[in-house]
Amino acid sequence: MNKLTHTLEEAIRNSGLRDGMTISFHHHLRNGDYVLNLVLDTIADMGIRDLTVNASSLFDIHRPLKEHIERGVVTNLLTDYMSAELGRFISAGKMKNPVQFRTHGGRPMDIANGNTPIDVAFIAAPASDNMGNCTGKLGRSACGSLGYAIPDARYAAHTIVITDELAAYPLIDWSIPETDVNQVVVIDSIGDPRGIVSGTTKITRDPVGLSMAMTAVDVIKASGLLKDGFSFQTGAGGASLAAAKYLKDVMLDERIHGSFGLGGITGYMVDMLNEGCFESLMDVQCFDMKAVESIRSNPRHREISAAHYASPGAKSATVDSLDVVILGATQIDTDFNINVHTDSNGRIMGGSGGHSDTAAGAKLAMIIAPLSRARLPIVTDHVTCISTPGSSIDVLVTQKGVAVNPKNDELRNRLVAAGIRVTDINELKTIAESISGVPSKPKLGERIVADVIYRDGTVIDHIHEVLED
Amino acid sequence: MNKLTHTLEEAIRNSGLRDGMTISFHHHLRNGDYVLNLVLDTIADMGIRDLTVNASSLFDIHRPLKEHIERGVVTNLLTDYMSAELGRFISAGKMKNPVQFRTHGGRPMDIANGNTPIDVAFIAAPASDNMGNCTGKLGRSACGSLGYAIPDARYAAHTIVITDELAAYPLIDWSIPETDVNQVVVIDSIGDPRGIVSGTTKITRDPVGLSMAMTAVDVIKASGLLKDGFSFQTGAGGASLAAAKYLKDVMLDERIHGSFGLGGITGYMVDMLNEGCFESLMDVQCFDMKAVESIRSNPRHREISAAHYASPGAKSATVDSLDVVILGATQIDTDFNINVHTDSNGRIMGGSGGHSDTAAGAKLAMIIAPLSRARLPIVTDHVTCISTPGSSIDVLVTQKGVAVNPKNDELRNRLVAAGIRVTDINELKTIAESISGVPSKPKLGERIVADVIYRDGTVIDHIHEVLED
Repeated sequence: MNKLTHTLEEAIRNSGLRDGMTISFHHHLRNGDYVLNLVLDTIADMGIRDLTVNASSLFDIHRPLKEHIERGVVTNLLTDYMSAELGRFISAGKMKNPVQFRTHGGRPMDIANGNTPIDVAFIAAPASDNMGNCTGKLGRSACGSLGYAIPDARYAAHTIVITDELAAYPLIDWSIPETDVNQVVVIDSIGDPRGIVSGTTKITRDPVGLSMAMTAVDVIKASGLLKDGFSFQTGAGGASLAAAKYLKDVMLDERIHGSFGLGGITGYMVDMLNEGCFESLMDVQCFDMKAVESIRSNPRHREISAAHYASPGAKSATVDSLDVVILGATQIDTDFNINVHTDSNGRIMGGSGGHSDTAAGAKLAMIIAPLSRARLPIVTDHVTCISTPGSSIDVLVTQKGVAVNPKNDELRNRLVAAGIRVTDINELKTIAESISGVPSKPKLGERIVADVIYRDGTVIDHIHEVLED
Repeated sequence: MNKLTHTLEEAIRNSGLRDGMTISFHHHLRNGDYVLNLVLDTIADMGIRDLTVNASSLFDIHRPLKEHIERGVVTNLLTDYMSAELGRFISAGKMKNPVQFRTHGGRPMDIANGNTPIDVAFIAAPASDNMGNCTGKLGRSACGSLGYAIPDARYAAHTIVITDELAAYPLIDWSIPETDVNQVVVIDSIGDPRGIVSGTTKITRDPVGLSMAMTAVDVIKASGLLKDGFSFQTGAGGASLAAAKYLKDVMLDERIHGSFGLGGITGYMVDMLNEGCFESLMDVQCFDMKAVESIRSNPRHREISAAHYASPGAKSATVDSLDVVILGATQIDTDFNINVHTDSNGRIMGGSGGHSDTAAGAKLAMIIAPLSRARLPIVTDHVTCISTPGSSIDVLVTQKGVAVNPKNDELRNRLVAAGIRVTDINELKTIAESISGVPSKPKLGERIVADVIYRDGTVIDHIHEVLED
């Protein structure tokens, strides 16, 4: 028995893929991924049409998808995140059926419970043996964790592993076991690992960002959560990473030994692990090469599946035990609702990812955002799109002060007692508008181009097409 | 959120367990397990009746089960193995409904495909955190791999972890993730780890056993399979372990670097790993403390789930890539059918375990057995119970010669060419009967006390009640 199939086309034919079926992809190679394009090109050449693509995230490198949509090869799109190029295409109304946005926790829930069954999962794997035991930790295209791919492989009717490094059987450090794999295809290259780091940034040098980061750490200290056993997640934006850096200094100074760092993992979190701030890292996705090296070699840096990370359909997930998460926003409104799907003009340029999941799970969900960005105010009266409901956000940190959600009186009192300047979010909105002016409303059409499905499965918002000026 | 429940009774009540439901147990603590008895006693006290017990194996320590059966608390029994004390009870016809015997691979298949759904899984875990991330590698009751428990936790409607060591969250080296666990109960002691080694033996000192072991290694050498990449599984009987010892010497002498050792793992297999005979061990169950220590500390010694080990319902399992397995038998007939369920008198004293699964998967499935045992011939014209069909057995090694299944002509030729004394199995039967006499047929009643379900889901044989003399 041997699952090696000579060509991708042969593997697709063996899988029984037909018009109208659903195929899935993961995004661990991020903007360096070659596999989604290769598979769709092959499928298009084979004449298969009307497919649903369920991809955990989509990046600019996936721009050929636009053509596959225009030609009817792909007619439905499910994803948790979409970068700006595809976002503009969708926002311009180029796709007939609305995109379904889910969260990183809602996606594995709906895969596991059968709401979004997968016919054929395509797993880009940096190393695999001939039976499909595969991993992201080894190989020249190593991307670290394969957390988002684990539910796809487990629940798909048919799973095809695509690798550029065939390892001897058994590949002992598998992320996905052979029990979940039907075929293995070896190709020249599954991606450019340099593309993994795309979309994440270095620590900001911008003084506004640094100032917000310092305030963020003050808030965490004042919250009462920063003590032994502390757990933490942060995004990969510049100010969030700066907050991690300041937080590390505080934890080392005060000899606070945390329990775990969670999420998409950067080298900054690896430093915190190695310097003793955390007992372990729980890693659903590696954001840079330092994280990849760490997950390969440090047993305290452990891969988790997307379900283990955040699924509300699981009996519990790591987000349920999280103390503090620092998140970004493209908009936040005076009810603390967050938009991370569109820019202020209403164009899609993101998605929830784990935003709603971690906000719902964490004891303290903090947004760091400047009052305005590109001359548009971030704090507004109504967000263009609700990605994360205000009910799960505790506090907003800006360069002009901190606003606490009225639902969390205890936090407000703690911050005031600690001497942190707490303001009303309406006041921050007024300041934002005084700097950038009251934004004109985006010009939106009637047509719905995307549904935003909250982690509990309900549609929390719709995204409308953006009319050209 | 916290899954800790104060008492086992409270946890059972929370689970919604009712009359007629199915509960499950694993056997990693073997004859040292306290959990099955504790759970059943508690359930009996709560007045719940008519339960189906699905246990991966049952040992003498589980003798209180007899009383629960007699009182109607337990009315159906599904297992892969049953030691002699319960076996005598079942063979005497004390249970109304026939026991369903499965294999270690068939059990997880039928759990996963819904043929044998589990309402409440009870997982004895030597260490767990408060959310149910748990392992067998840590704690004072450490038993190593929890391979057989993994499918139970994953597919049960409700999973209760029972532990005697509460670890800080997150227990990073989990075998079962919190995603699969509803409740965690801490008790004083889940078992006596010294009981783990029960049922397995040391290398035989019996000259007959040693002679068979040497012949077994000669057969493996002659088979052509003993080369770099070689993979191997052996049972924990005295002659099988002796064969492992001799095999190690040959592999070291000839500098053969194998790929993996599989199965229930003993210290002898750990030695082979550490001395370079194998690249890795794939461990579904630890048979002794040396194996427990190794799986805890050596990343090349990896735990596998029962499905990954042997499920024919998985997209593949490790047994499918196995070169050689050495197995035992209580009887073998002239068609090479194997009985490991009953003794020659027809009384239940075992079960398939992984016997049929590895025999079906391995390129060379070898039986080592003396011609007679306790004055009863082992080689016979018809086995009392077919556990493993002769079609998947390649060769029988006895102290009086080697018999090759006629289906495997190539092997026969190789053995003859290597100078091994190959005889006909009918000849071995004649010799056996000349030593021990023709056995009287066991006195069996009409009533069926157990169904033997082969790994493909078909009933391969029935076991009848044994009439008392």
